[in-house]
Amino acid sequence: MATEINELADKGKTAREASYRLAGLPTETKNRALKEIASGLIKDTPAILDANRRDYDEAKKAGLDPAMLDRLMLDEKRIRAIAADVSTIVGLPDPVGEVFDMRTMPNGLLIGKKRVPMGVIAAIYESRPNVTIDIAALCLKSGNAVILRGGKETMRSNVALAKTVTKALNDTGIPAGAVQLIEGTDRTLVNELLKMRDVIDMVIPRGGAGLIKFVRENAAMPVVAGGIGVCHTFIDRRADQEKAVAIVYNAKVQRPTVCNALDTVLIHKEIAGEYLPKMAAELGRAGVELRCDETSLAILKKTPGLKLVPASPEDWGKEFLALIAAIRVVDSLDEALEHIRRYGSGHSEAIVTEDYTSAMRFLNEVDAAAVYVNASTRFTDGSQFGLGAELGISTQKMHARGPMGLKEITSYKWIIFGSGQVRP
Amino acid sequence: MATEINELADKGKTAREASYRLAGLPTETKNRALKEIASGLIKDTPAILDANRRDYDEAKKAGLDPAMLDRLMLDEKRIRAIAADVSTIVGLPDPVGEVFDMRTMPNGLLIGKKRVPMGVIAAIYESRPNVTIDIAALCLKSGNAVILRGGKETMRSNVALAKTVTKALNDTGIPAGAVQLIEGTDRTLVNELLKMRDVIDMVIPRGGAGLIKFVRENAAMPVVAGGIGVCHTFIDRRADQEKAVAIVYNAKVQRPTVCNALDTVLIHKEIAGEYLPKMAAELGRAGVELRCDETSLAILKKTPGLKLVPASPEDWGKEFLALIAAIRVVDSLDEALEHIRRYGSGHSEAIVTEDYTSAMRFLNEVDAAAVYVNASTRFTDGSQFGLGAELGISTQKMHARGPMGLKEITSYKWIIFGSGQVRP
Repeated sequence: MATEINELADKGKTAREASYRLAGLPTETKNRALKEIASGLIKDTPAILDANRRDYDEAKKAGLDPAMLDRLMLDEKRIRAIAADVSTIVGLPDPVGEVFDMRTMPNGLLIGKKRVPMGVIAAIYESRPNVTIDIAALCLKSGNAVILRGGKETMRSNVALAKTVTKALNDTGIPAGAVQLIEGTDRTLVNELLKMRDVIDMVIPRGGAGLIKFVRENAAMPVVAGGIGVCHTFIDRRADQEKAVAIVYNAKVQRPTVCNALDTVLIHKEIAGEYLPKMAAELGRAGVELRCDETSLAILKKTPGLKLVPASPEDWGKEFLALIAAIRVVDSLDEALEHIRRYGSGHSEAIVTEDYTSAMRFLNEVDAAAVYVNASTRFTDGSQFGLGAELGISTQKMHARGPMGLKEITSYKWIIFGSGQVRP
Repeated sequence: MATEINELADKGKTAREASYRLAGLPTETKNRALKEIASGLIKDTPAILDANRRDYDEAKKAGLDPAMLDRLMLDEKRIRAIAADVSTIVGLPDPVGEVFDMRTMPNGLLIGKKRVPMGVIAAIYESRPNVTIDIAALCLKSGNAVILRGGKETMRSNVALAKTVTKALNDTGIPAGAVQLIEGTDRTLVNELLKMRDVIDMVIPRGGAGLIKFVRENAAMPVVAGGIGVCHTFIDRRADQEKAVAIVYNAKVQRPTVCNALDTVLIHKEIAGEYLPKMAAELGRAGVELRCDETSLAILKKTPGLKLVPASPEDWGKEFLALIAAIRVVDSLDEALEHIRRYGSGHSEAIVTEDYTSAMRFLNEVDAAAVYVNASTRFTDGSQFGLGAELGISTQKMHARGPMGLKEITSYKWIIFGSGQVRP
């Protein structure tokens, strides 16, 4: 059953050939296949749950922690949610074929760009089985062939899900090479895959920092990665304090385990004495542990009921992914900007202020995928930004930055309509 | 004088710091520096020519061929041309700061994108010293810091040119870290540079296939590369034969040593007998050697005065960079498309036809940076495509495809104007 090393090249070739067909498929055909996947998931629920149960039992036996177990677990409701996500993708506009920047040059050449799929994408991801369907559906809609490599904890679930996809492709006349799963848990398969520059146009790692680093260092083809979000919110001296408390609370508490959740609050010294106790009281009610610099610790130690811990140097620049926030009082906007430059991961950063010039300086000077004035960093998300769905959040500057939707996994070609022009 | 390995990290840090300043510089300041560079080049001509003369003599002694010697040679006229190119860049619009895709979401958040520099770019290139100024000027205009590493044959010329740039930067208050040259010819410096992912956002190799391959395989940061152009022109059975001859002639003869020059002509069998002799006669007058498949050889052997050579298998997919063209007669458009898919390098491909459906199929199905109907592939060029200037031609699909102008060495960030929004 498991993919052998020497089959990888075949998978690559099959994907490449499928990509030629996919590039020319009408939106209607792709949507029909997506609808088949959505209904297939419902029909195949018993088989999928059975496979998932075996993954779950094995993972439990292996001692995976409850949070990880919860991530890999599927039930009927979760499968319905995955199918609903596929239906959402049916409704999104097809990015392929868009023609833009057309203009007629003085010599009469009509020149412009046409959006085309990237070609073949490889996705390497961890634990959550819904990612298998997510990525398959987004790649299919954008005309890309995809080679999937999921985590070993969900291998059986992924195989079952891929079966549903393959059936839907067959039923709608799309080559099966459009979506292929690498079976087996041998890490050398990933090493081989990352060398296949000839047949893979782009690789997307989705998972922890270790995985991303490994892919970046070993991939021979372009990588679009993101993931790590060390997110700051700076409370300026002219902040509306009520808004500030609500924004910090939301950014930290609404879903602490995701990359756009708040990690560090920076507070201007002029309002720290008045603002910090209010903010800390709210966070305290949600059970947030506060890792405080000296100044904030001195201010907050009078407030009862808080989990206060003196911040250690490693707390700055740390992605907590938990109900923990680092707190630092700064002397100025400049010091806040410097802190963010030094410790931020280029994901999402926010300022809360009523001061126009501070707001504009923050927007201009912070170098991150998403920079906010007076809003929660939790909004950094494909659907919140109007992209409909997302493949991940890129924290790199090349190709795509921030939430990656369908358009972000396409390329373009220049198209030129002539009437015999030659270059003088 | 030469850069030591342990100075590289400093150069990287200096570039990174300069990039923060550059990102916020007004267009006016950047243009002032560019004008200083242009006038500095004229003023410093004696010193530049002196350095270049020493490069030239050494290269000649080392036995470099005349074409290479011509490429590295500077004279007053060439320096004036380089200065004129810098002045052109002054006149181009500044891509940085452009705000686009702004929209107001239902929750009142105003969300959009703002164009920003990439940050720090490394350029690794060969022989021609004008590249030093070209890339420095384009990076400066787009707010990027750049680390330059030129070829060893032009090291003295590059040092002289970089001196002119540094002076212009100093005179206009721009940090010298904005443009830095790596001196010395030690290849291990390149190896080290390619590891500096933390401080370099993008690397651009410009040169031969060997250099590009080396950079791709060794760079830890994203690479944007191009260069190799195996360009086909397909003469369809419904081609206007007069246009076809002119287009093929132009694509092959006008400047045979560049990447967008024609390499292979594919001819539909239905018109081969009539068309080929006309085309071959024209090409023959320019001294073009024709490497013919069997069918075309049989047709052409009656035409007098041609340099005919039977094509070997390696002639398909070869970038000749010389007055040589491969000729093949194909049975159909499909066979032409298949040939291009197999042997093309994804650079520039053309069809000559009066048939609407063939033209549209070719545009849709050929996967290349630039796809032409009824025009010479020689137009694939930044200034011909209206970009004003170019940093190179990308044949990859990620980030930028085709000619790369100023916009293609920028990124964007999402900017979000809120009024206290939190995520429900």
